[in-house]
Amino acid sequence: MPEGGTIITLTTDFGTRDCYVAAMKGVILGVNPAARVVDLTHEIEPQNVLECALFLKGSAPYFPPGTIHVVVVDPGVGTERCALCVETGDQYYIAPDNGVLSLVVKPEEVLKAAVIENERYLGPTISATFHGRDVFAPAAAHLSLGVEMGKLGRALHDIVRVEFAVPKVGADGTVEAQVVHVDRFGNLVTNVGKAAWHDLTYSAEEVNVRIDVGGVVLDSISRTYNDVPVGAPLALWGSSDFLEISMNQGNAAEKLGATVGDQITIRIGTQ
Amino acid sequence: MPEGGTIITLTTDFGTRDCYVAAMKGVILGVNPAARVVDLTHEIEPQNVLECALFLKGSAPYFPPGTIHVVVVDPGVGTERCALCVETGDQYYIAPDNGVLSLVVKPEEVLKAAVIENERYLGPTISATFHGRDVFAPAAAHLSLGVEMGKLGRALHDIVRVEFAVPKVGADGTVEAQVVHVDRFGNLVTNVGKAAWHDLTYSAEEVNVRIDVGGVVLDSISRTYNDVPVGAPLALWGSSDFLEISMNQGNAAEKLGATVGDQITIRIGTQ
Amino acid sequence: MPEGGTIITLTTDFGTRDCYVAAMKGVILGVNPAARVVDLTHEIEPQNVLECALFLKGSAPYFPPGTIHVVVVDPGVGTERCALCVETGDQYYIAPDNGVLSLVVKPEEVLKAAVIENERYLGPTISATFHGRDVFAPAAAHLSLGVEMGKLGRALHDIVRVEFAVPKVGADGTVEAQVVHVDRFGNLVTNVGKAAWHDLTYSAEEVNVRIDVGGVVLDSISRTYNDVPVGAPLALWGSSDFLEISMNQGNAAEKLGATVGDQITIRIGTQ
Repeated sequence: MPEGGTIITLTTDFGTRDCYVAAMKGVILGVNPAARVVDLTHEIEPQNVLECALFLKGSAPYFPPGTIHVVVVDPGVGTERCALCVETGDQYYIAPDNGVLSLVVKPEEVLKAAVIENERYLGPTISATFHGRDVFAPAAAHLSLGVEMGKLGRALHDIVRVEFAVPKVGADGTVEAQVVHVDRFGNLVTNVGKAAWHDLTYSAEEVNVRIDVGGVVLDSISRTYNDVPVGAPLALWGSSDFLEISMNQGNAAEKLGATVGDQITIRIGTQ
Repeated sequence: MPEGGTIITLTTDFGTRDCYVAAMKGVILGVNPAARVVDLTHEIEPQNVLECALFLKGSAPYFPPGTIHVVVVDPGVGTERCALCVETGDQYYIAPDNGVLSLVVKPEEVLKAAVIENERYLGPTISATFHGRDVFAPAAAHLSLGVEMGKLGRALHDIVRVEFAVPKVGADGTVEAQVVHVDRFGNLVTNVGKAAWHDLTYSAEEVNVRIDVGGVVLDSISRTYNDVPVGAPLALWGSSDFLEISMNQGNAAEKLGATVGDQITIRIGTQ
Repeated sequence: MPEGGTIITLTTDFGTRDCYVAAMKGVILGVNPAARVVDLTHEIEPQNVLECALFLKGSAPYFPPGTIHVVVVDPGVGTERCALCVETGDQYYIAPDNGVLSLVVKPEEVLKAAVIENERYLGPTISATFHGRDVFAPAAAHLSLGVEMGKLGRALHDIVRVEFAVPKVGADGTVEAQVVHVDRFGNLVTNVGKAAWHDLTYSAEEVNVRIDVGGVVLDSISRTYNDVPVGAPLALWGSSDFLEISMNQGNAAEKLGATVGDQITIRIGTQ
């Protein structure tokens, strides 16, 4: 346990207007008053499992060993979907088994996981609609007190994974990519990762590119926003190593009328 | 005091764009640097005392003994309304005396309460518009340091309570209920609690119901969202034991065009 | 170090929908698991340096000695602007050198500051677009572990300051003021501070005023909202000692159609 009490993070689609997040914090601190609860976000789009998976990939791994991440984006609450506890990279995730962990728990990992089902570590009653309070929060708090994962329930050897769109490479080498996230600044995050890019370009240092975003064409990958004039669009590698379309001191999504799911066409090495 | 420092929660209608919440956190930690400040919400609708009272009922009681809840939804700031400190259920509330505590402090409780008026435990100057910073935050911080409630000011034997709409039962047994809250997912929380329901149904296990929400009729109470097809409306007992109108993986408020204050008609035990 | 771990506050324009704030929290706690991270706001208008400077003035100084304030409103990320560490009033600020500290670090102060450039205290790789995670968060965490400011990089003797609009006094004594902030409640915060007011009025206790806000004329400065009828506009000294235009239990910005940058004309001591 780190000095200062175990860290329990919260990632939900609850917003903060309703009492749901506050109730979860109360339950966690009610079980383990010394836990340190850290908000990651409560603004995941309601029931958007893919957005949640991307969010976790860009944030959770930075936390120290022993951190317990509680994730509640749970369209299937009250159905037969399992409640999970997974250990990975010295951290723990407590989440519904619906794919939210697809990007932080790698398929090649030997899965250390348990179903959360031991009533001893759940709330006094289990509502059909709010497992964040009645299942995930108490399980996380008990885990933070030193309860072993195996005590929560039976071992699990596989988790639900959701498919993420991968860029398609055509016969002529054209890459059909996709906008997978638009951030607060209007940056368009695509599904073109740096590793895939290196494969496509045979890791060549210098390549010609032609990136078509709804008719706007970019012919280079910039290093930083200020490589182009204020208000001009650009492509660059974002902070999570995905190709992004941005606008220097502007909002690319608004200016280009682009949104999640939009297609981006990339030609590499040609004029 | 729990291990890790006394927990002081914040519930306000301040939002977080302005400096008000941050100033309160600074004042609390300035007086007691070891306190642990926990955000419950800052998104109560501005000056909506009833929404705040409902929010607290669904969250504050889960916190551990010794927790100090600071509540600042305060349309009467600068008037003669008192600043309160109330002890209930092993917890403390610091709030304006305007009804925000109506649902967490039960009328039948012997009231342990004090007016916050001892200048020793207030800020160095008291503005006319921001008692969150100048009155409530410093009082909470001093309380967390072990100052006795009675030192804050004279004892109080009654608090302001606000009326909540209760369902009306007609001569023919028809129940006129009301939507009292719409949550982020579009669930319509009604004022029909489980206890009242048991009275209405004579605690019968099986009853016929006919719930009319703006012309949409539901003839049963479901256990969980997935008891109906995706996109279909349903009634169920919500996580705070109030009857809710929802939509499986949809937004009932949007689809039914319903909002707070709307009437819901329920017939019990008839066709 | 205060009991309970060093306090590190966060003030950004990132919102909480994206993974940026969560990544910063992870990096800080990854370096110093005992730090206590406190959210001030993440809702500064994107890239609005002036709004950020005002926000900090109204909140950061209340925190206890030793607090480390991390500020990331950074339109120039990836350019040559410096990353700063400044010590002032027993607190530390970690921020881009772009003017966000203009109001919390006074020009007359002897500046104790360093450029953050020692790779030992930065992230493993420095992206071109997210110094919050790669520069500011790790530097703050190392500082909280006791690293001396001088170790972060070379000393700095001046910081970038931004100009704030000051009220203009005409030949006839008319004061042209400006709305510099609109808060969540629709209060219009002006740039007329109490010190400037005392100069203008020769500190006279009783003065006649005539405040013109887009045609609505107020002829006195009230003490509190309730000095006027519900729904009536008023002027009063706000909690940060700036003149504000408000509406008793109403939204002045909406009702008067006013916004940031609007002009307010004040005549003092005349009919």
